[in-house]
Amino acid sequence: MNTGANLAKKRKFIEERYNLLDTNMKAIEVIDNRLEVRETSLPEVKDDEVLIKVKAAGLNRADIAQKNGLYPPPPGASEILGLECSGIIESVGKNVTSKKMGDEVIALLAGGGYAEYVACPEHHAIKKPMKLDWIEGASIPEVYATCWLNLFMEAGMKEGDKVVFHAGASGIGTAGVQLAKAFGCDSFVSAGSKEKIDFCLNLGASAGEIRSNDIFASIKNWSPEGADVILDPIGAEYFEKNLQVLGLEGRLVIIGLMGGAQSNLNLGHLMIKRQKIIGSTIRARSVIKKNDIMKELSDNVLPLFDEGLLRPIVHEALPFSQCEKAHSIMEANKNIGKIILSLD
Amino acid sequence: MNTGANLAKKRKFIEERYNLLDTNMKAIEVIDNRLEVRETSLPEVKDDEVLIKVKAAGLNRADIAQKNGLYPPPPGASEILGLECSGIIESVGKNVTSKKMGDEVIALLAGGGYAEYVACPEHHAIKKPMKLDWIEGASIPEVYATCWLNLFMEAGMKEGDKVVFHAGASGIGTAGVQLAKAFGCDSFVSAGSKEKIDFCLNLGASAGEIRSNDIFASIKNWSPEGADVILDPIGAEYFEKNLQVLGLEGRLVIIGLMGGAQSNLNLGHLMIKRQKIIGSTIRARSVIKKNDIMKELSDNVLPLFDEGLLRPIVHEALPFSQCEKAHSIMEANKNIGKIILSLD
Repeated sequence: MNTGANLAKKRKFIEERYNLLDTNMKAIEVIDNRLEVRETSLPEVKDDEVLIKVKAAGLNRADIAQKNGLYPPPPGASEILGLECSGIIESVGKNVTSKKMGDEVIALLAGGGYAEYVACPEHHAIKKPMKLDWIEGASIPEVYATCWLNLFMEAGMKEGDKVVFHAGASGIGTAGVQLAKAFGCDSFVSAGSKEKIDFCLNLGASAGEIRSNDIFASIKNWSPEGADVILDPIGAEYFEKNLQVLGLEGRLVIIGLMGGAQSNLNLGHLMIKRQKIIGSTIRARSVIKKNDIMKELSDNVLPLFDEGLLRPIVHEALPFSQCEKAHSIMEANKNIGKIILSLD
Repeated sequence: MNTGANLAKKRKFIEERYNLLDTNMKAIEVIDNRLEVRETSLPEVKDDEVLIKVKAAGLNRADIAQKNGLYPPPPGASEILGLECSGIIESVGKNVTSKKMGDEVIALLAGGGYAEYVACPEHHAIKKPMKLDWIEGASIPEVYATCWLNLFMEAGMKEGDKVVFHAGASGIGTAGVQLAKAFGCDSFVSAGSKEKIDFCLNLGASAGEIRSNDIFASIKNWSPEGADVILDPIGAEYFEKNLQVLGLEGRLVIIGLMGGAQSNLNLGHLMIKRQKIIGSTIRARSVIKKNDIMKELSDNVLPLFDEGLLRPIVHEALPFSQCEKAHSIMEANKNIGKIILSLD
């Protein structure tokens, strides 16, 4: 019996197949507000988590804030940037029942996506739509989860609603415009250039206005009776005007503060119009809430990619090593749709 | 054949039974900001409406605002004050299917309750709980419809929630405290006197504070992690402090502006806490929405009166002729619970 040789062979097989003995991985780390690829430890995989071998990771505006020290990760989350990825399940925790090794998934992450491997709760990874490649797949989770959560679960968007997307050419905007159209809603976009507005109109928005013009006069013109839903990443700068163009029983969802946080509010107008102001973030939500969001996304939205009713909007995919350049494109607001880091 | 005499007899019978030939009624009218009982015409009864012979009518704070010219009735509503009543169905429009002559009902009204007769859409009148007399019955519709709409339908109140009622000893407050208890929620009240606080504690509130003390420190003490729902008739004066004591994913429902309308709002706090601010009124809602509210009230709340889990809180009932005195009690904030005008 050549037991020693057999064991060595077996060990080599496991090592190659699962990289289990290689406990290091490459990840992008923040060094003095700059991004660098470094060696670090593999993430710990909890009993109800899966380990994903990352194929591509999406950029989000929150990554820039985190890089600059303005958006610390929630307790327990990875310190590594990255809120979404596509990839292959590499291993599963002992309580995992819904995923198995080799599954091709896209995943919503509380952090850690800018790395070769990332761990997340099993239900935050959902089956990748067949028609999408890894780069396209990585462009979906964060923006579609954000749109689904805020438009449908928070604002109760329903067929026939008129919906405004500020920053309409962003990842969230381009996802929102397509979702609105797919679910029978009319949308208006604001964006920084005519090129971006035209892009949104081609995606299905019915009207739009350049930021340097009077956006709110154009919204009134588009819907004299007011909007039903406004998804707003701007905050204070647009706040009072948003409420003025919001219709009876309209819902304003605040998902960002690019235009500041401190506002005035006329409660009388809010009451008479029976409006709702909803503050929302997705990252710090509970595991259970994210399970719900990803389940609804998997059931209601992902099939529309395979049916061709939705399409991923990828502005540019760059290799992992060009993460600094990828960030600079977003920082300059040059992108239409998503910027992706490819690890393939 | 004594046809002429028969006809006269028949006519007299109809006249006595339905008052159909007497097209006048007594109603309380506003004359130079004062209330006077006057003769006026019977209300028109539309095809989908019922005519109610009013037995008792509830007072609401909105009546005072309307009397003072600050709260005009919504389009199409009676100019006569009065947002709720108890009474007997006297006649029905030709399309009415759910009510018949002689039914004992309580009704939510867009106006017209301070009168011998009032007309309203058939589904806005619901069966009076058996255990309640006319005066008690008239104390229910407006405050319970307001609480049901705002706590359950708007704020999504659920078992285990911690709920704050400002003006806890008001009609709405005393209804809200009881509803919260009946549906497994913990409540805190603010009110103008120790007597009022004690009354609310006896009704089922778990804590309270007098308005002249630091209400918000007491709320923090009652629930360090914050409130889930705040039902607020005060507005600006409490607004920022309300948001500070509102917990993660808390809902602030603004239903009145006794403390002004113009406020400041920190959108960053709203986002991080994932809070909702909801402006709400009930009077101007659609007939269909009010149908839904009254159906839910009839199904979920009215049975609790017959079961003894809820009780009407009537501060005082006065005859129709003492409407001025009734208003003066409410204007002086002397009441705990409802003030009722009796027409019996």
